[in-house]
Amino acid sequence: MELRERIMTNFKLIKENKPLIHHITNYVTVNDCANIVLALGGSPVMADDQAEVAEMVGIASSLVLNIGTLNSRTIDSMLLAGTRAKELGVPIILDPVGVGATKLRTQTAQKLIEVLTPEVIRGNMSEISVIAGQEVAIKGVDSLADENNSSVVAKKLAFTLNCVIAITGKTDVVSDGQQVCKLNNGHRILADVTGTGCMTTSLIGTFCGVTKDYFAATIAGITCMGLAGEIAHASLHHGEGIGTFRARLFDSIYNLTPELLAQESKISYE
Amino acid sequence: MELRERIMTNFKLIKENKPLIHHITNYVTVNDCANIVLALGGSPVMADDQAEVAEMVGIASSLVLNIGTLNSRTIDSMLLAGTRAKELGVPIILDPVGVGATKLRTQTAQKLIEVLTPEVIRGNMSEISVIAGQEVAIKGVDSLADENNSSVVAKKLAFTLNCVIAITGKTDVVSDGQQVCKLNNGHRILADVTGTGCMTTSLIGTFCGVTKDYFAATIAGITCMGLAGEIAHASLHHGEGIGTFRARLFDSIYNLTPELLAQESKISYE
Amino acid sequence: MELRERIMTNFKLIKENKPLIHHITNYVTVNDCANIVLALGGSPVMADDQAEVAEMVGIASSLVLNIGTLNSRTIDSMLLAGTRAKELGVPIILDPVGVGATKLRTQTAQKLIEVLTPEVIRGNMSEISVIAGQEVAIKGVDSLADENNSSVVAKKLAFTLNCVIAITGKTDVVSDGQQVCKLNNGHRILADVTGTGCMTTSLIGTFCGVTKDYFAATIAGITCMGLAGEIAHASLHHGEGIGTFRARLFDSIYNLTPELLAQESKISYE
Repeated sequence: MELRERIMTNFKLIKENKPLIHHITNYVTVNDCANIVLALGGSPVMADDQAEVAEMVGIASSLVLNIGTLNSRTIDSMLLAGTRAKELGVPIILDPVGVGATKLRTQTAQKLIEVLTPEVIRGNMSEISVIAGQEVAIKGVDSLADENNSSVVAKKLAFTLNCVIAITGKTDVVSDGQQVCKLNNGHRILADVTGTGCMTTSLIGTFCGVTKDYFAATIAGITCMGLAGEIAHASLHHGEGIGTFRARLFDSIYNLTPELLAQESKISYE
Repeated sequence: MELRERIMTNFKLIKENKPLIHHITNYVTVNDCANIVLALGGSPVMADDQAEVAEMVGIASSLVLNIGTLNSRTIDSMLLAGTRAKELGVPIILDPVGVGATKLRTQTAQKLIEVLTPEVIRGNMSEISVIAGQEVAIKGVDSLADENNSSVVAKKLAFTLNCVIAITGKTDVVSDGQQVCKLNNGHRILADVTGTGCMTTSLIGTFCGVTKDYFAATIAGITCMGLAGEIAHASLHHGEGIGTFRARLFDSIYNLTPELLAQESKISYE
Repeated sequence: MELRERIMTNFKLIKENKPLIHHITNYVTVNDCANIVLALGGSPVMADDQAEVAEMVGIASSLVLNIGTLNSRTIDSMLLAGTRAKELGVPIILDPVGVGATKLRTQTAQKLIEVLTPEVIRGNMSEISVIAGQEVAIKGVDSLADENNSSVVAKKLAFTLNCVIAITGKTDVVSDGQQVCKLNNGHRILADVTGTGCMTTSLIGTFCGVTKDYFAATIAGITCMGLAGEIAHASLHHGEGIGTFRARLFDSIYNLTPELLAQESKISYE
């Protein structure tokens, strides 16, 4: 109950303050990330040149780093922006897309974590397992790993890295190293649309732009996406699929209220 | 009335000639820019490598430069493409996204203006104010500035730079340094979707591809977007928001006729 | 009839195996390509850095190369990824977007073909004609060429390059150098949406991820897009256009079944 109130309060703060969320992200889903931040009430800015990222992060409320289409130029930009973010106390939210699929991704994620100590890391079980040093073969960006012990993985890794870890999947798990919450909103059609993971990270980033309670912020962001997915799917008619669903997903986030979010959220402490 | 006729004529020319509009633009809204040009009746091409931009601009009817996600590679491409455009008499339309937010953006916009002398510059009041050398703090890409004196700013800057200046916002202002028009189509939901500014610039670019009357072309492009926003918003049902609105925006541009545009446009001379 | 059965079988294999389709593609339509692969039942991955493309292609079932916004960095990545694909027997599907419009595009397409010998090349008549060494002036990415002799061009080029050639347009032509098929699904509104060509190539790539019968795979991919375009267009109401059509296009691919595809396909041998 207390958690639901914190989520409601933070959601209202987003609507009031319109936090600026600086993204260094992939070119596949960047438009979706921008629109989802706007739908929630935040203000997105995407800037990735080394000559401006430190300055841009200086006017931002949070920094989202997503390695979906990383390259040497943007990796350096992430390090520059992230270093400045740490100096300023701007929270960093890391989405280690596809980590484990290539050495570049694994090494980059490790370096970003080591150098920048992000406030939140969100991935699927495969990705988080790789980061946890577990030997899980992952195939691209999709989750293949067994989700049975996700609570243990999340809690242990969060404790080790002193951050919030979110493992999203059928059931989502969020831990700050001490508390563990399981989230049960969502619909499986979300996995059939590209970028729903990236967008979830952007929603978390938007919540982190208005509070230092990153545990609640992460839960709020994931729950927004899950609930919006449910609403969007329920609105589909015969013959409609991921194209219409995707439009309705933005509609649903746009029309979400703090009260509805609190009321419909399926959050349980472990 | 005369202006409305010029707009109708130019709109018909787009449908007949399908002008090729070369963009060097950001990766956030580039897909939207391509689709909006197609919806209006033009043909978009996006090319940003230094080895081909000068050649590509040689077959284009106008050149849209947008610094939304600028980097050192694309800045040089903009200068190369723009220089060739000037030699060939291809009009340049500049969208100085986020100018003032970082030194890189401010310096780049200034350099592009100085070296290329664009035919049209479109921005929000914050962006145009920065270019006008006024001291206005801007936060990212959003408009924070007072719009009271936008007519004065637009007219003065247009006169100084010998180009058309468009300041878009609740009321849009367009000036060529002598005439000033205020445009009152639009809906505030347009500000809740990423890329509506960029798309407006692309629409202006499409009109500039069929006429040397850049003042009328700029007014036409902005009015298309405003009117389409009105139509798209009016079509929304309960539970729909920016996702559905965005699809309808493309629908509305696609179905816009020269006659409807002339009839529903809210344009007044100052 | 036999061809229709092979198409059905391959479509079922996609749904079962969820092949990973590695893209090095343009930033204009990349999101659409990712979503269309997901809609069909495949799994897309976009990675373009030289430090990871060879490794990524090692876990992929096919490689789609699209030069829509090529640059020196990604051209080298295409060569690296393609070379590794040949070593591994991973099929390469090339979309030579805008070839002929600039020297860079023409030279790059020629180099990719020479070095990598792609399994499939898909383009419009202008693009394929340029590759065929014919002197056809092309304007950007749009088809201007006469389509009368497309069967001859396709067959001759397929024979010369020992690959499958697809020329898409009002009627699509596919040849492997010996057989020639004409495909008559589709709707002209498809040409009013950016990326329908790129998406068709991605669909072909997805089919090539489950079979070595690249001729049938190419026919299947093109027919999927054509049929989905018909279904999506038939669903439009008054006032709807390319925005809604685009969402419905993804819906239609998502809801397509192997049986419907086989039943509604308009394929004829020459």
